Amino acid sequence: MANLHGRHICLLGGDSRELKLVCALIDRGARVSCYGVPKDGLHPEAIAAANAKEACRGANAIVLPLSGTDSNGNVRVTSSPICITRELLFVLSPNAILFSGIVPRFLATECQSLGIRTVETTANDELAILNSIPSAEGAILMAMQATPFTIHNSNCLVLGLGRTGMTLARMLHGLGAHVWAAARKAEDRARAFEMGLSPLSFADLPSCLPQIDIAFNTVPALVLDRSLVYSMKRTAAIIDLASSPGGVDFIAASERGIHAELAPGLPGKVAPVTAGQIISKVLPEIIAAEFAKNKPD
Amino acid sequence: MANLHGRHICLLGGDSRELKLVCALIDRGARVSCYGVPKDGLHPEAIAAANAKEACRGANAIVLPLSGTDSNGNVRVTSSPICITRELLFVLSPNAILFSGIVPRFLATECQSLGIRTVETTANDELAILNSIPSAEGAILMAMQATPFTIHNSNCLVLGLGRTGMTLARMLHGLGAHVWAAARKAEDRARAFEMGLSPLSFADLPSCLPQIDIAFNTVPALVLDRSLVYSMKRTAAIIDLASSPGGVDFIAASERGIHAELAPGLPGKVAPVTAGQIISKVLPEIIAAEFAKNKPD
Repeated sequence: MANLHGRHICLLGGDSRELKLVCALIDRGARVSCYGVPKDGLHPEAIAAANAKEACRGANAIVLPLSGTDSNGNVRVTSSPICITRELLFVLSPNAILFSGIVPRFLATECQSLGIRTVETTANDELAILNSIPSAEGAILMAMQATPFTIHNSNCLVLGLGRTGMTLARMLHGLGAHVWAAARKAEDRARAFEMGLSPLSFADLPSCLPQIDIAFNTVPALVLDRSLVYSMKRTAAIIDLASSPGGVDFIAASERGIHAELAPGLPGKVAPVTAGQIISKVLPEIIAAEFAKNKPD
Repeated sequence: MANLHGRHICLLGGDSRELKLVCALIDRGARVSCYGVPKDGLHPEAIAAANAKEACRGANAIVLPLSGTDSNGNVRVTSSPICITRELLFVLSPNAILFSGIVPRFLATECQSLGIRTVETTANDELAILNSIPSAEGAILMAMQATPFTIHNSNCLVLGLGRTGMTLARMLHGLGAHVWAAARKAEDRARAFEMGLSPLSFADLPSCLPQIDIAFNTVPALVLDRSLVYSMKRTAAIIDLASSPGGVDFIAASERGIHAELAPGLPGKVAPVTAGQIISKVLPEIIAAEFAKNKPD
């Protein structure tokens, strides 16, 4: 178990998942201050600061939720509004590290100019693979709700065989769907074939899409464009798991009468307990490993 | 494809699934009269009768929905109230056959006294196995909605390895759950073991239940009694797929704060299109096979 004795960690924003993370950090010896996390259920040893600046003062690390901030620095999931400003970052300890699921470019630049290292936690494969489980279940739940037919025996397409696409394809296969998996890399298509799925390159989409009942996108780029969306059945459904704005022409889908949904942040919505267990297991290890990279003070 | 030329079939009650069945029967040459089915989307060659008696007059077969009637003869799923009375059965053709998912005892007796053969369609394995697919998906959907954790890695118990239990256990296993399967017969436990599930006899339930996160019951008898329900975690969920009144002490579950739901008729609710395809594929074959058993007129 990671040792965080002598470290002061500041959490800004979050939901019930962060309450578990607070416990995990305190269990490992850290001093934890926070702002914008739910007060109900907060560990009694955690310091509930009066504002974000007080929470940050002297901290060795600042931890933002997985959804990070918008491009103006506003924390996306928080019980009180928080904007990550230069003024706020200035009160951290020297050699402080900022951890966030996503780090927008302006924030990375701001941190760099202050000597604050940034760590994008969603880049961590262990965290991303574990989080792909509630994401995939959430996508399946949405597909079940959106369609009047069973997943079993339906023609499902998974776009992208990354960490989430792989989990989703395996689960759909386990439910008895016919699963097509579109991947750019030949080795991912080989893995899909080995798993009993039907591999596709993106160039094959025009011939595959007309038979698809449910398309799941995980690629953060426009992969289902207007003409591809128009090649789909009107009874098809599209669930887009890529981060906003997703990879689907939603206007074309709406025109064609196809049910299409962007589904961000599924783990916290569908399985908050599991999602909390995941971040409280993995994040303390990531944080300790990053502290270990700092030069001795 | 079954040939139903020269047969007059009367449908009493139903939903969108029966609209597809009407098409399938007409496609196979039958004359179809109906009452209590939705008017919107009814096949133009079907006779929409003014009342149940007119629909029945001279019919060679009467088809009730899968949910059948209550113990007073009232059709459970119908757009207009219908009670199956002796007077109604009296206007059928000689050698008529009554098809219903469930045939209550009084109705079986009444039919027998009038020389009407009754066929309980849910006893048909092909129909029941196909219907188990939307049932199992519906149960999984309910479990996902009822719990704040993932199905994956959860401890799931399936009570009964009949037609629905087998489908459900396989799907849960496919999602990555740890699946215990309780079955009375040694051969069913052997099959569970072969599938990678953990087999149990019902005598093993007291030692297994305390670790279970989600229990799915398919047994139409009180298998989860007060003491067994009280041995479960308060965070557990129970989904009961057995026909009403189910196999769970729901009062004990409520007292203990365990989420417990009785979930009858899932196929029509969760996947009406698939459920309609199933009955329109299987029922015409069942009906034709039963007509073939009649002595030549």
